[in-house]
Amino acid sequence: MNGSQAMVKTLLAGSVDVCFANPGTSEMHFVAALDQATEMRCVLGLFEGVVTGAADGYYRMAGKPAATLLHLGPGLGNGLANLHNARKARSGIINVIGQHALDHIHNDAPLNSDVEGVARPMSNWVRTIVSSTHAAMDTAEAISQAKSAPGRIASLILPANCAWESADAGQYSFAAAHPPAAVLEETVDEVAALLAKPGTAKRVCLLLGGTALLESHTWLAGQIAAKTGCQLLSEPRSPRLQRGRGRVNVRPIPFAVDAAVATLKDADHIVLIGSTVPVAFFAYPGKPRLTVPANCHVHTLATPGHDLHAALQALCDATGAGGTTPAFLSKDLTMPVYEDGFPTPATIGAVLARALPENAIVVDEAVTSGRQLADSVPYFAPHDCIDITGGAIGFGLPAAVGAAVAAPGRRVVALVGDGSAMYTIQALWSMAREGLDVTVVIFDNRSYRILRGELNNMGGPAPGVNASRMLDLDGPELDWVSMAKAHGVPGTTADTLSGFEKALNHANATPGPSLIALRI
Amino acid sequence: MNGSQAMVKTLLAGSVDVCFANPGTSEMHFVAALDQATEMRCVLGLFEGVVTGAADGYYRMAGKPAATLLHLGPGLGNGLANLHNARKARSGIINVIGQHALDHIHNDAPLNSDVEGVARPMSNWVRTIVSSTHAAMDTAEAISQAKSAPGRIASLILPANCAWESADAGQYSFAAAHPPAAVLEETVDEVAALLAKPGTAKRVCLLLGGTALLESHTWLAGQIAAKTGCQLLSEPRSPRLQRGRGRVNVRPIPFAVDAAVATLKDADHIVLIGSTVPVAFFAYPGKPRLTVPANCHVHTLATPGHDLHAALQALCDATGAGGTTPAFLSKDLTMPVYEDGFPTPATIGAVLARALPENAIVVDEAVTSGRQLADSVPYFAPHDCIDITGGAIGFGLPAAVGAAVAAPGRRVVALVGDGSAMYTIQALWSMAREGLDVTVVIFDNRSYRILRGELNNMGGPAPGVNASRMLDLDGPELDWVSMAKAHGVPGTTADTLSGFEKALNHANATPGPSLIALRI
Repeated sequence: MNGSQAMVKTLLAGSVDVCFANPGTSEMHFVAALDQATEMRCVLGLFEGVVTGAADGYYRMAGKPAATLLHLGPGLGNGLANLHNARKARSGIINVIGQHALDHIHNDAPLNSDVEGVARPMSNWVRTIVSSTHAAMDTAEAISQAKSAPGRIASLILPANCAWESADAGQYSFAAAHPPAAVLEETVDEVAALLAKPGTAKRVCLLLGGTALLESHTWLAGQIAAKTGCQLLSEPRSPRLQRGRGRVNVRPIPFAVDAAVATLKDADHIVLIGSTVPVAFFAYPGKPRLTVPANCHVHTLATPGHDLHAALQALCDATGAGGTTPAFLSKDLTMPVYEDGFPTPATIGAVLARALPENAIVVDEAVTSGRQLADSVPYFAPHDCIDITGGAIGFGLPAAVGAAVAAPGRRVVALVGDGSAMYTIQALWSMAREGLDVTVVIFDNRSYRILRGELNNMGGPAPGVNASRMLDLDGPELDWVSMAKAHGVPGTTADTLSGFEKALNHANATPGPSLIALRI
Repeated sequence: MNGSQAMVKTLLAGSVDVCFANPGTSEMHFVAALDQATEMRCVLGLFEGVVTGAADGYYRMAGKPAATLLHLGPGLGNGLANLHNARKARSGIINVIGQHALDHIHNDAPLNSDVEGVARPMSNWVRTIVSSTHAAMDTAEAISQAKSAPGRIASLILPANCAWESADAGQYSFAAAHPPAAVLEETVDEVAALLAKPGTAKRVCLLLGGTALLESHTWLAGQIAAKTGCQLLSEPRSPRLQRGRGRVNVRPIPFAVDAAVATLKDADHIVLIGSTVPVAFFAYPGKPRLTVPANCHVHTLATPGHDLHAALQALCDATGAGGTTPAFLSKDLTMPVYEDGFPTPATIGAVLARALPENAIVVDEAVTSGRQLADSVPYFAPHDCIDITGGAIGFGLPAAVGAAVAAPGRRVVALVGDGSAMYTIQALWSMAREGLDVTVVIFDNRSYRILRGELNNMGGPAPGVNASRMLDLDGPELDWVSMAKAHGVPGTTADTLSGFEKALNHANATPGPSLIALRI
């Protein structure tokens, strides 16, 4: 048994049985080891951003880490943006990154670079294996890191000689993963006391983050809100929201700083539950950096590392909210109707409410367009939504690949802006290759619409030639049906609401991936 | 005047007048400053790997740096692979990388990451601007770094407040760029003495690297070889080779380690001229790491930082080679003919020899297929070739964008493997948008052919299911004509040599970009 084989054996023993991969020469021994392990599902991405984004989407839906296989510093570099999103989502991932043989690094061959240096900014844990006899043990520790609560990005750098040299079989043991922490009773009592104060509760906001957006958690939060009259909000971007009809729908704090400030302006107390202090997505001249009111008190019931369900259950018990019908519960809604016409971000929500399949997984990277869907979400069939937590675009299509691998039998609907889609468009091919049930909706507005808004926010003159050439995608227009076809995915366009609904229904009923370019 | 405006003014004063860009919100003030500077050519890339690869291609052909504009840590991460290639080519680039306002970084907003940490592995110089009043001065230093000999990757991180706050107009001065160093006379004499020793010269190899592959340099090297009988080789990958008919054609050391060892086996002395000690591209079990024979003496006539033309001229003078007709001079060649049939890497060279336009720029990222073209190169019309110096694939199409921007009026012919092309396929759109005269030839072999070879080199069994799923690109096949159309580029396929020649002639005669998918 060589180092690679010991690693693959360790991964499988740790129930890591999916490997998103884009290998190169230095990883050929690891590829050979994967080749002998038929229990491992290997999914090829034609670009490393697909690989890391898929591992993020997989973790969010499977609740356990996948491995990635990346080629040296440049391959890892290509995967960094989606590792950034994954790190902000607190997803667990085990990156196996090839490296030159230990005795070849100093020769500074063309592909040599500081692999640890590339890994560190987007990883929680980085280690270079120094001997094939350490390979299994280091892999076991990487698994433990990735499986901790919250999840961590574990980057394991594999020098080629450690992959091909001999290793002992089975001489490894798993380090225990870091479990979620328990919340102190005193902390729960303090928050419960705050909510019990006459006149105070309605100016208390429970701010949910991380796993607190799962259905089982929001139900408890909804009960507490119903019982005490407190407010509920979620962070602007969450890793996984279970929402829609029959569920408690917690509104996210808006992205735009003015709207975020307005949303929070009446809060005297914010209680963090798996979330962090709300901040502006970007800084702007003369606008606040924190979106919390100046005199607001911020309390921490639970950090992302705590057991959020237990924390919410304890608060529910302490407030006597058990058995209450939750606030923000979406039920008995009349299905929206729409007047047919040209789709706009404000009107397409009605179509999604009608056409989203039960138990779908929505990937939300619609950027400008996506923000206007919030009002329609309570009408949607119950679904999971995975969101672009780190703001690094190019997340949506890869995450859809990973979510579909994690949840066979569920339809994935990826809502992606045209600008965003182009960062990692190669994901379409992986969808076709793996026959994944993904409906890709491209919001085709032929511009970086969000940036036009941001430029406008500065209050200067209208964009001239140079600015327009950096913000518009209309010369030439991207041909989305050809783009889909190029990658082996059937594609169509829609430019009316009814056409969109028809295309959605057809795509969702067709096994494998489809793409709809929605002209807006 | 704000910090951004002072920076753009400084760039233009330093004759940096091309900016390859993929901006985000934090760069909007810089975009506004570019908007006011109509002398600056702004070229949008839909993905940051296009941006950095284009800046590399631009430097190689223009001989001066361009600026890039990138969005925070993730945007820079997406550009790292091609910065790696640029660094290995010793290209000069000025990266302007957005960052949160200085008083917002500590709030750890979703897009926050260690931008300096991301920049460092692939940069020669990294600085974060700490005040808008420093913006011009820091930009001037970045320009000097990039313009030094050899070129450097200068990464300048621009916090948003330094972009929007006030700066003095014109209060900057350029730091002098590091000029090329002069070679000591004693060093030249020592090498000349070596070449004068009876029976020694034929076992001396002059190894050319960097700018020593320009026509004016290889001519001198060829004269020295003709006069003394020494050998000439170039590094396996060089930033820019001027070669073809009427020029001295220096053969590169082969990529494969066994072939490289065989090529160098008779060398008792290797003289480095802008090159470094030859090493294996990758390490393999039981194969050497250095490709130089054990008892070979390695001498340094000139490092990449020296004035290589002056060094070669001095050696030419010292050996009395001036006026000699150079060795390896390609002239009076009969244009090759071919028997028509299915194109193979071994036969397409004949077509290129017939169809490559005079003074073309060839971008070589054909990987497996490209290696077999070496025999045909002396038959090609005189041309520049820019090569993938760092081995990080995804270089070819972006570099073609930059080369075409740098050299209007010259046809760029980009030879790219299908696997390679998919890393940065978005470059096609920039070619269409800018109307660049680029002929893209995709070597469509439907696999990572090089990796199949590398797996085979290990001597194991034939690839099974998992390995094949990581090495083959044939399920589904990429549809290259649709791919081109999707990005606004006309495309065609060729599956015979005559069809390829016809398609090449048509594409080369058609203004703007075209794509040919060559089935091999």
